Amino acid sequence: MALHNSEPNCIFCKIIKGDIPSFKLIETDAIYSFLDIGPLSKGHALVIPKYHAPKLHDVPDEHLGEILATLKKIAVAQGVENYNILQNNGKIAHQVVDHVHFHMIPKPSDSDKEGLVIGWPAQQANMDELKKYWEEVKGKL
Amino acid sequence: MALHNSEPNCIFCKIIKGDIPSFKLIETDAIYSFLDIGPLSKGHALVIPKYHAPKLHDVPDEHLGEILATLKKIAVAQGVENYNILQNNGKIAHQVVDHVHFHMIPKPSDSDKEGLVIGWPAQQANMDELKKYWEEVKGKL
Repeated sequence: MALHNSEPNCIFCKIIKGDIPSFKLIETDAIYSFLDIGPLSKGHALVIPKYHAPKLHDVPDEHLGEILATLKKIAVAQGVENYNILQNNGKIAHQVVDHVHFHMIPKPSDSDKEGLVIGWPAQQANMDELKKYWEEVKGKL
Repeated sequence: MALHNSEPNCIFCKIIKGDIPSFKLIETDAIYSFLDIGPLSKGHALVIPKYHAPKLHDVPDEHLGEILATLKKIAVAQGVENYNILQNNGKIAHQVVDHVHFHMIPKPSDSDKEGLVIGWPAQQANMDELKKYWEEVKGKL
């Protein structure tokens, strides 16, 4: 595994180092996880790569492999059945801390007062345009 | 890798098999990805494990390892800077198809008319209660 990136002023890098206390759940060489102290619902947890990077596309693959298994472990330990996994990239996409973090947010009821609240402005795709865009993207993969 | 689970009536299992067409992006032994035909924004893509399971905690770890790297590849190919990674578990958590799927949803602007719309009913945690819950969860990890 490549050396970890670390950023002196990053609140999550400070949590990883232990300079800021946290309700730590699971830690490995690659990841760190803890309870969110501003939870959307009881059990709201975060899993972060130790490698500091603002956005998902900045994190080397080798630092990503354990993240989903860790989120799963935390959901299982809590016995939650309904929950959202969320990772936001960019301020307009609701990212607040500029160190990649994955939320595991239990959804105990369908109330808008607890858990993640989702708006879904789905569009009817124009299939010709979608096919054209698909060919464009495939060419870059 | 364990044998894939497959469910005859699952729309995503049918897409994986090719019985239903899709705008396929990346396929490996473990995962399949394609453009969403009811997109929230241009480039909205899905990455799914081939292993059929309704919820994240039902998927064996060995089928999860490539998913985030694939989401990242798709974001990079499209050159998107702002986006949300989302995976919903349970109808009340906005899950529609009962085969685990991860969304990569570009957020081209802060408009509520395109991309994922997020409501965030954060609570002020009672630190004593949070600590108590943390100890309970730690005991199950």
